[in-house]
Amino acid sequence: MGEKPSHACDERGFLSWFFEPDSVAVIGSFREGFFGGYVIVNSLLKAGFKGKVYPVNPAYEQVLGLKVYSSVIEVPSEVDLALIMINARSVMAVAQECAEKGIRALVVISDGFAERDAEGARLQDELVEFARKQRMRIIGPNTAGVVNTANGFNPCPYEAGYYKIKPGPVAICAQTGMVNPQAFPYPTLRAGVSKICDFGNKCDLDECDLLEYLEQDPVTRVISLYLEGIHDGKRFLEIARRVTARKPVLLLKSGRTEAGAKASASHTGSMAADDRVLEAVCSQTGILRLEKFGELFEMPKLFSSQPLPEGNRLGIMTFTGGIGVLAIDEAAKYGLRLAALGPDTRRVLDEIFPGLGTMPVDIGPAMAAVKEAFDRYSEILGGVMEDANVDALFSVLWANPVGSIIGRYVEAYEAVRNRLRKPLVTWVYGPNAATALELRERLEDMGFPVFDKPETAIRALGLASRYKRFKESAQGPRYPA
Amino acid sequence: MGEKPSHACDERGFLSWFFEPDSVAVIGSFREGFFGGYVIVNSLLKAGFKGKVYPVNPAYEQVLGLKVYSSVIEVPSEVDLALIMINARSVMAVAQECAEKGIRALVVISDGFAERDAEGARLQDELVEFARKQRMRIIGPNTAGVVNTANGFNPCPYEAGYYKIKPGPVAICAQTGMVNPQAFPYPTLRAGVSKICDFGNKCDLDECDLLEYLEQDPVTRVISLYLEGIHDGKRFLEIARRVTARKPVLLLKSGRTEAGAKASASHTGSMAADDRVLEAVCSQTGILRLEKFGELFEMPKLFSSQPLPEGNRLGIMTFTGGIGVLAIDEAAKYGLRLAALGPDTRRVLDEIFPGLGTMPVDIGPAMAAVKEAFDRYSEILGGVMEDANVDALFSVLWANPVGSIIGRYVEAYEAVRNRLRKPLVTWVYGPNAATALELRERLEDMGFPVFDKPETAIRALGLASRYKRFKESAQGPRYPA
Repeated sequence: MGEKPSHACDERGFLSWFFEPDSVAVIGSFREGFFGGYVIVNSLLKAGFKGKVYPVNPAYEQVLGLKVYSSVIEVPSEVDLALIMINARSVMAVAQECAEKGIRALVVISDGFAERDAEGARLQDELVEFARKQRMRIIGPNTAGVVNTANGFNPCPYEAGYYKIKPGPVAICAQTGMVNPQAFPYPTLRAGVSKICDFGNKCDLDECDLLEYLEQDPVTRVISLYLEGIHDGKRFLEIARRVTARKPVLLLKSGRTEAGAKASASHTGSMAADDRVLEAVCSQTGILRLEKFGELFEMPKLFSSQPLPEGNRLGIMTFTGGIGVLAIDEAAKYGLRLAALGPDTRRVLDEIFPGLGTMPVDIGPAMAAVKEAFDRYSEILGGVMEDANVDALFSVLWANPVGSIIGRYVEAYEAVRNRLRKPLVTWVYGPNAATALELRERLEDMGFPVFDKPETAIRALGLASRYKRFKESAQGPRYPA
Repeated sequence: MGEKPSHACDERGFLSWFFEPDSVAVIGSFREGFFGGYVIVNSLLKAGFKGKVYPVNPAYEQVLGLKVYSSVIEVPSEVDLALIMINARSVMAVAQECAEKGIRALVVISDGFAERDAEGARLQDELVEFARKQRMRIIGPNTAGVVNTANGFNPCPYEAGYYKIKPGPVAICAQTGMVNPQAFPYPTLRAGVSKICDFGNKCDLDECDLLEYLEQDPVTRVISLYLEGIHDGKRFLEIARRVTARKPVLLLKSGRTEAGAKASASHTGSMAADDRVLEAVCSQTGILRLEKFGELFEMPKLFSSQPLPEGNRLGIMTFTGGIGVLAIDEAAKYGLRLAALGPDTRRVLDEIFPGLGTMPVDIGPAMAAVKEAFDRYSEILGGVMEDANVDALFSVLWANPVGSIIGRYVEAYEAVRNRLRKPLVTWVYGPNAATALELRERLEDMGFPVFDKPETAIRALGLASRYKRFKESAQGPRYPA
């Protein structure tokens, strides 16, 4: 069997074969279409993957300018990883050839295994047994595979219409292909992504292996995880405790109800863990539990861009009292309480408009009453952000219909960015969906997370506050007796 | 004092003066800007308001081609409603002139009343006392006013950039201007709106009066309500019970926590009701309680377009097992359980692809394995919708990046629409935000509600199911002993 060069296997574990291969074999159909080997090869080329790509299929000679080999055995050089997307019944034979070739890592994209029926479960068991004997590792089957933005490795097996993904600090791993490029518009995720992984049926590699790999991954700073079940609770507990001490781990777990767990069993062939046990695991390990699917994509951006809040005193700046009240309600769920501005800040704000220095800072009346009020916006935002009595700020921005005030907000945020010592989360609203989106995108491009609902923004701060408290308690008391 | 023509006041109560005026006086500044009298007049003209508009301000002679009167007294004909947006301290004098003119209805947009400080509270009390004596009614102060799409009455006092709003069955009323056109992009709300009302400080007219008016409003079929406090719990209980028997009422109540209630008191000068009392009121009256601000706009569209579910058996059609599991978890919160297809439907689906007839119907594997699979999509959707064992359907659609399959979905939904006897809710996902939006808009234009998160779609069905059960229990047992 071949040996993976030391840079990968030795230092970072076997998952580097999957995320950092120097050479991959793509075993599938090379007919043009929505999915299959053709799509994988096309995606790899367009994403700028620097490693070697070897298409394999006896029925083809060429695809996208590359020679197609009739078998992995025929590939003239070493192969680090095989991506397999053929009929489930044919996978075993290909796995045997891969073993013969010395390939140590397989992504089995094919479905029709344990998630389908008893015959599929048998095929999966056979495959696992063979791989164990051969010291081969498997991601899948029934997976949409992996992505690594650092080396342009995006072998997405379903046509996504885009190929390059903005590199960034967020790793998204799931027991579903719903996090892979064909399912989610990553160009809209401005925080940027480090790694993506769909575990599929988890016949071999699972969330524990991924967490260990991501713990060591220098690019990944926050991990978003969707699971339907956990194979090895004890190992998960151990690893999660270690990883969360270094990086926040956000977990969405489905199959929380009996009915959901039953459906999960038929979907990926795994049994759902008891939800109460998981709850205990989360509180022991500092894993932050998510509640909605969309949070997998939306929550990490706070952690990837903002400092953690030092305390629980929440500042609110709003154009509308109503949203201030809703935000305070939401904040209470996370132990965040409304900050009171210090006397100096209060004086400055009250001079701009009477009562402006009282939390929540309601800019609406001032903007309607004060001449050239938007000239003062930067001063107000800066004052609140600098106030030592505020640990985190929720900023509500109204985008006017023609977008003419967007520049003033951007200026104000620019000024704040240069001395950011506390998290700032934003919600943008307004009568024109396009200008609201423009403002949102400009702020996100500057590194400020903007959320699509006010409650989500507060929740993000709430999770950050929880994580901060967990880290402090994990480190023990700061002033030992 | 003048008398309102009988069509309004006699049959539909005094709120018809506010929503269906034949003539309005606009008292404010007519300088061009983001807000003020100029914006109101401009909005009325561009929204196509058919009634008469009389701008009033001694400092102007003309605005937007209309003569400006120096006082309401000077207006040569009867005035049904005065819209007042001047300094709080000057409102009383204008109210006196309105009384002299015989105007019975005032919308006091001005802020700086009870929500500001003690002096503002005094001004408000004076105004209320005067109005009572004069038998004048007030909406506000501190309000963004009202909208009636039936007569083009959109006097929005803040520039929204659009003026006409699609008429429809949804009434949205709130104790905040966050539901008025300047704050929300109504052109994206495809369900259409009947009335909008910001109660403001509720110094006189409040949610009870609005509910009574909307109960009788033939256009309104569902009512979305945001409140920070309830003035008269007993009256609210009585009226809500009556209204919910005819139309669903969706309520978001903030100030649920002590901190939120305190903030609410300073925002609109009202005290928040005890949340547990409100919870009891909701369960007695069948009011459906909302949890997030965005639900005010998103939840009504199910009620305005779909039949209520006859039972709790939820069908799910998905392109991805993961979302199926999450949907089942969410559904359990509302007592919805996964349907099992009848034997005939199951047979037809299993013939298309083995296992397709098992709930949740996972189309993903079939679409990847069956030739011309999208030719069968309409057949599958139709089969599940027609199945007598399914009371409601959650449909998950994948929009492919180039949008080429959108037409197939639209065809299938068209076929279903012609015999719609159960609610169908949809969530669209995909790698291209633009094509996903296109599919969403095409379905919504056909009258099918599409939700921005899978959990929200299930929640909408859950609320519909609650409302159906409430209506049944309110009507008593169907088979009396």
